[in-house]
Amino acid sequence: MTYGTLYGVGVGPGAPDLLTRRAIKVLRRADVIVLPRSSYYGESVAWKTVRTVARKPEEQEHLFLTFPMKRDPTRHKEAWDKAFAKIGPRLERGLSVAFATEGDPSLYSTFIYLQREAPIRWPGIRVMVIPGVSSVAAVPAVTGIPLADGLERVAIIPAGYGVTDLVDVLNRFDTTILMKIGSEMENIFEALRITGLTDKATYVSRATMPQQRMVGNIREMTPERGDCFAMIIVSRKERSGVLAGDVSPGKLLEKADA
Amino acid sequence: MTYGTLYGVGVGPGAPDLLTRRAIKVLRRADVIVLPRSSYYGESVAWKTVRTVARKPEEQEHLFLTFPMKRDPTRHKEAWDKAFAKIGPRLERGLSVAFATEGDPSLYSTFIYLQREAPIRWPGIRVMVIPGVSSVAAVPAVTGIPLADGLERVAIIPAGYGVTDLVDVLNRFDTTILMKIGSEMENIFEALRITGLTDKATYVSRATMPQQRMVGNIREMTPERGDCFAMIIVSRKERSGVLAGDVSPGKLLEKADA
Repeated sequence: MTYGTLYGVGVGPGAPDLLTRRAIKVLRRADVIVLPRSSYYGESVAWKTVRTVARKPEEQEHLFLTFPMKRDPTRHKEAWDKAFAKIGPRLERGLSVAFATEGDPSLYSTFIYLQREAPIRWPGIRVMVIPGVSSVAAVPAVTGIPLADGLERVAIIPAGYGVTDLVDVLNRFDTTILMKIGSEMENIFEALRITGLTDKATYVSRATMPQQRMVGNIREMTPERGDCFAMIIVSRKERSGVLAGDVSPGKLLEKADA
Repeated sequence: MTYGTLYGVGVGPGAPDLLTRRAIKVLRRADVIVLPRSSYYGESVAWKTVRTVARKPEEQEHLFLTFPMKRDPTRHKEAWDKAFAKIGPRLERGLSVAFATEGDPSLYSTFIYLQREAPIRWPGIRVMVIPGVSSVAAVPAVTGIPLADGLERVAIIPAGYGVTDLVDVLNRFDTTILMKIGSEMENIFEALRITGLTDKATYVSRATMPQQRMVGNIREMTPERGDCFAMIIVSRKERSGVLAGDVSPGKLLEKADA
């Protein structure tokens, strides 16, 4: 059987002009655009970007699928079974399907599970990943604080799944990006206090979107529940860049080992 | 004094169609585009992408500046002094300057030092960062292996500056991205052997460029000197995604703590 091509299309962090030319081309040509949303009644965040380039509904199908943001894996399984039942017949009819994801499709996107399952469910299918500007790249663009320069190391931690070793990670990486904060805000604040890095942390939610929120001094924040777009970026900036006085390797490492 | 706006423009990992609409707009409107290259006689990698959207040389200045890729910080200092001497007078004349960087301007880009120095040298200057698709996002798009899903953590390590704690990092992060490999290839191979992760490593150089090189089985490689675009990605994929059997937090952490 010859299936239609399945695309995972990164549509960028939220601002529609952060779409790439390749993403625009794929979204315009696709027979079906799949748009994930977190609830049946809610809006698809990806659609706000995709609608700026999509064809009219009579020329191209816009298929909204609901993926609840839950930690309970059985809820995900149910949503994916429904999604496969919708996407499968279209691929089997030879239609090209572009699955739109916010940010980049390879970093915590809804598409990843589909990417893994596709060759099992539809053997021989062509799967293409169109990389996008990730939310991780959007944050330094709005805060003005680079992610990493020269010697610096970066850790990306989905905090909502546990931050028991966060103090150690904060001590050993120049930049720590905490995503999926959920109910872990209080534990994150505590780890920042222990490491003395509270003043090096910035809270950013929905970078580049109209609803963007940025808090440079997180002491001003109550340990609220982070929304699913919220990130806390901790930038030590102790050995930034190639022009820093000391470029000998292992300085931070020695400290960590001590 | 009113200076021209300074832009750091991420032009993506190499394929010209991975430029964003915002980058195209800024590059087309800028009075001056600065294009870094690693030697006076060498080609600017960013130019291969920028030339697809730049205006004609009589309508817009294309200023090539040389930044040797050296670990010796004094070499960088000299290159930057020359660069400031070229860029400064243009900003002082009110010209807008777009500094093109490969990938994303906030992750190991030449622009970062300029971004830090600009407000000191030209007080009150407007600096804008245009995020781009980073080389880190390009790699999973060409290998088909996502960077991180669900519970997974990511470490980005500039290996050329020392990998003394690499065994520990490899054990504690689901995905480890080794950049700036330089002469560290042999040490990286050794760390992979110790951790038993050799089969989980992929070598990728110049992802999405015509010269792209990918080695899925790094046992086939001699420990050569990695070129400056080379990366080794190590993907454990032991607890991938939301549908993995065990979503309890801290599983990998406990192992690391033991």
